[in-house]
Amino acid sequence: MITTTITLTAQFYDLDPMGVVWHGHYARFLEQARCALLDKIGYNYVEMQASGYVWPIVDMQIKYIRPIKFHQDFTVSATIVESANRLKISYEIKDTITGETLTKAHTTQVAVDATTHELCLESPTALTGKTGVA
Amino acid sequence: MITTTITLTAQFYDLDPMGVVWHGHYARFLEQARCALLDKIGYNYVEMQASGYVWPIVDMQIKYIRPIKFHQDFTVSATIVESANRLKISYEIKDTITGETLTKAHTTQVAVDATTHELCLESPTALTGKTGVA
Amino acid sequence: MITTTITLTAQFYDLDPMGVVWHGHYARFLEQARCALLDKIGYNYVEMQASGYVWPIVDMQIKYIRPIKFHQDFTVSATIVESANRLKISYEIKDTITGETLTKAHTTQVAVDATTHELCLESPTALTGKTGVA
Amino acid sequence: MITTTITLTAQFYDLDPMGVVWHGHYARFLEQARCALLDKIGYNYVEMQASGYVWPIVDMQIKYIRPIKFHQDFTVSATIVESANRLKISYEIKDTITGETLTKAHTTQVAVDATTHELCLESPTALTGKTGVA
Repeated sequence: MITTTITLTAQFYDLDPMGVVWHGHYARFLEQARCALLDKIGYNYVEMQASGYVWPIVDMQIKYIRPIKFHQDFTVSATIVESANRLKISYEIKDTITGETLTKAHTTQVAVDATTHELCLESPTALTGKTGVA
Repeated sequence: MITTTITLTAQFYDLDPMGVVWHGHYARFLEQARCALLDKIGYNYVEMQASGYVWPIVDMQIKYIRPIKFHQDFTVSATIVESANRLKISYEIKDTITGETLTKAHTTQVAVDATTHELCLESPTALTGKTGVA
Repeated sequence: MITTTITLTAQFYDLDPMGVVWHGHYARFLEQARCALLDKIGYNYVEMQASGYVWPIVDMQIKYIRPIKFHQDFTVSATIVESANRLKISYEIKDTITGETLTKAHTTQVAVDATTHELCLESPTALTGKTGVA
Repeated sequence: MITTTITLTAQFYDLDPMGVVWHGHYARFLEQARCALLDKIGYNYVEMQASGYVWPIVDMQIKYIRPIKFHQDFTVSATIVESANRLKISYEIKDTITGETLTKAHTTQVAVDATTHELCLESPTALTGKTGVA
């Protein structure tokens, strides 16, 4: 199982008028964890581009279980759950101190040929060679 | 069916290095349509607060079908699909000119008593009186 | 004097825990007005790129005079104040109803040759031909 | 001289279509450094609120010297340059590896009495006691 975890702290600019992190900002937290995960397997945006594919996000789902408050430290773990036909990553956000689950999420990306702009029904080996599926 | 539609134009600040709207920014588009919808029934943030409830988003799902490009005009329609026990709103983003569907999404909110911080298992009449469910 | 004015409404996602628009979000308002201004003279990002120049912002200054609140309608006017050697634009944000000045700002951009990456000490005629300075 | 320095890495979501950090996102970097500085002297948002004052930003100026690129590591230092009558902080962003200066900025905040909403012409001792000016 390919997984990685980053640690973040809620900033003032993340907060909404309720004093909690605005729900739309979580996309940043997920992306930062996803990039750390893709760095780990050596297939982040730079390598994607070099491989001739772009990987747009086609689906994102976020379940907000508990709010995140100012200065709260939290971890975001990202785990590859599928890579053969598309890249599906699941996420879990936890309070750093209590370990309480705050958020669950997942994103799905598909490979698109950068030259032909055609959607790939199978993930290219540029990815699956890294995830061990190919 | 309670629904409303707003019109937006993709701005430079919405774009990512691929030259298309960054997936995380869609939460803003959905929120702007949702607020227009809640204004229409007279139960937006100000009225929510006055009614003694806050309505955090507990779930958001976005399906990205086609990218949105710089200066592209698009409509965002928001429709209430459930309000008895929670407030579920579905969204559709379409190209203003072609009518092509670009994105589908939904959000779910639950009522929380502002004083006791308790989750309401049924939506308060402050909402259902507006949606015609109560 | 080349100028244009857009009308905006403060959204929930613009607000900070004080219930007013977070100071960092104003860069979006200025950019939207600037793009409308550049559209007006036919020299926005697409035409910039076609002309062989990029125009990075090298300076931004914002004076926050009065806060902007949820649902407040405001206008953002953008005016070209200099274009011979650099593109300097001044901005004024006013309450739509009262006309009260809420914010003053300016941005400065310089032309950079897209091929050589060299800074232009004089603005190219691609711009000055549009502003009437050349 | 009261100063602090944080280390950040440019994320994908920070980038614009030119592949560099969008100029408007720097307000986040400055705020994060400012909060670290205010934490250091024990007068961040929580303590501000407890002291009966809010400290809106009334001026922000940013000079963009060199662009910041994807995955680039940079430091943001924040230094209090004035606190007797208002809180003025200067910032310098540098490349972590080369030490090259990328950005210079400053922000100015003034104290506003949270109860009367009156502007304070002198900074309250709640701040100046921490900065050693009182």
